[in-house]
Amino acid sequence: MRRFLFLASRAATAPAFRLEDLPGAGRMDLVCRVVTASFVVSHGLRKDVRLDVLLRGPPDPPRAVRFDGAGLRNLNPDERSTAALVQKALAVRPTGTYWQPSTPGISLSRPGLPDLLDGPVVVLDEAGEDVRDATLPPEAIYVLGDDRGFAEDDLAALAPKVVARVRLGPRSLHADQCIVLLHNELDRRGA
Amino acid sequence: MRRFLFLASRAATAPAFRLEDLPGAGRMDLVCRVVTASFVVSHGLRKDVRLDVLLRGPPDPPRAVRFDGAGLRNLNPDERSTAALVQKALAVRPTGTYWQPSTPGISLSRPGLPDLLDGPVVVLDEAGEDVRDATLPPEAIYVLGDDRGFAEDDLAALAPKVVARVRLGPRSLHADQCIVLLHNELDRRGA
Repeated sequence: MRRFLFLASRAATAPAFRLEDLPGAGRMDLVCRVVTASFVVSHGLRKDVRLDVLLRGPPDPPRAVRFDGAGLRNLNPDERSTAALVQKALAVRPTGTYWQPSTPGISLSRPGLPDLLDGPVVVLDEAGEDVRDATLPPEAIYVLGDDRGFAEDDLAALAPKVVARVRLGPRSLHADQCIVLLHNELDRRGA
Repeated sequence: MRRFLFLASRAATAPAFRLEDLPGAGRMDLVCRVVTASFVVSHGLRKDVRLDVLLRGPPDPPRAVRFDGAGLRNLNPDERSTAALVQKALAVRPTGTYWQPSTPGISLSRPGLPDLLDGPVVVLDEAGEDVRDATLPPEAIYVLGDDRGFAEDDLAALAPKVVARVRLGPRSLHADQCIVLLHNELDRRGA
């Protein structure tokens, strides 16, 4: 299974955001694009993917929304319908690190970052090894940040788990674009 | 300059669509993701890109919207704000194949497909050469379709211009994801 973890530094943590203003909900539009990039292919969804999104914006951080490709139903590629699924997940009352079910394939919890790092971590690093040449463990968790990158505390939590630092190319890209490139590399390897 | 042409087989050709239902406007959400994939990078826009979108849905096809990276201002990555720019372009009255200005970097015309093929064409083809090994002419127009692919007439118009058929990987992807992969390959080549 391919695993992605997206750290959304200011994404809303309650469902009372407006679907008409996703950028204003702490860049919820980017969260939605990350979901689409993780799962959507032509004429279907990737089943062998798990995506965790750690939302850290107001009013009550943190929340994590887990998307499990094996269970997802009716995930459409557009941002608005994906944001509506995130809203439904955020309406679930969290009980610590236990994953509470929301809609099919989607669940919610209130973890710390270390709770989500249950495997070897691969991070993107412009000074890292070219992804095309890198060793990528099958159980790796690819951890991506938003435009604010990783905070010091995050770097400290990630460091002991990191097994590879890879660069995708010469341009710095958004997290969803990075996921498209990672999927392509792994698809090519038959992973 | 990198050039992309996206054939949107049923995208709306008048501005009277609802920003709350982009999929219902002939998959205008996909059009918006294609725009974002073509131009948006981390902390900026690609200046050296031109994207033409040929819209062919109701009520009055065809229309083409041209996005010129050198002139674009305030292009945000979210679908809704991009769709609002497309709406403004569709409010312009077309006069044949002349490009009428809309907002900065965006213009509208009413061309046939052949009018948009003013250079060598590269198409995606799952039986084609691996893009990583392919010769990609610097002035190529990368032509992409939506989930309906190319019509017979389109294939006939494209055929004499095609200089390369390339595959991106083993999975069939959406047009916006293909653009991310093409940009990455061209970025790596320093093209």
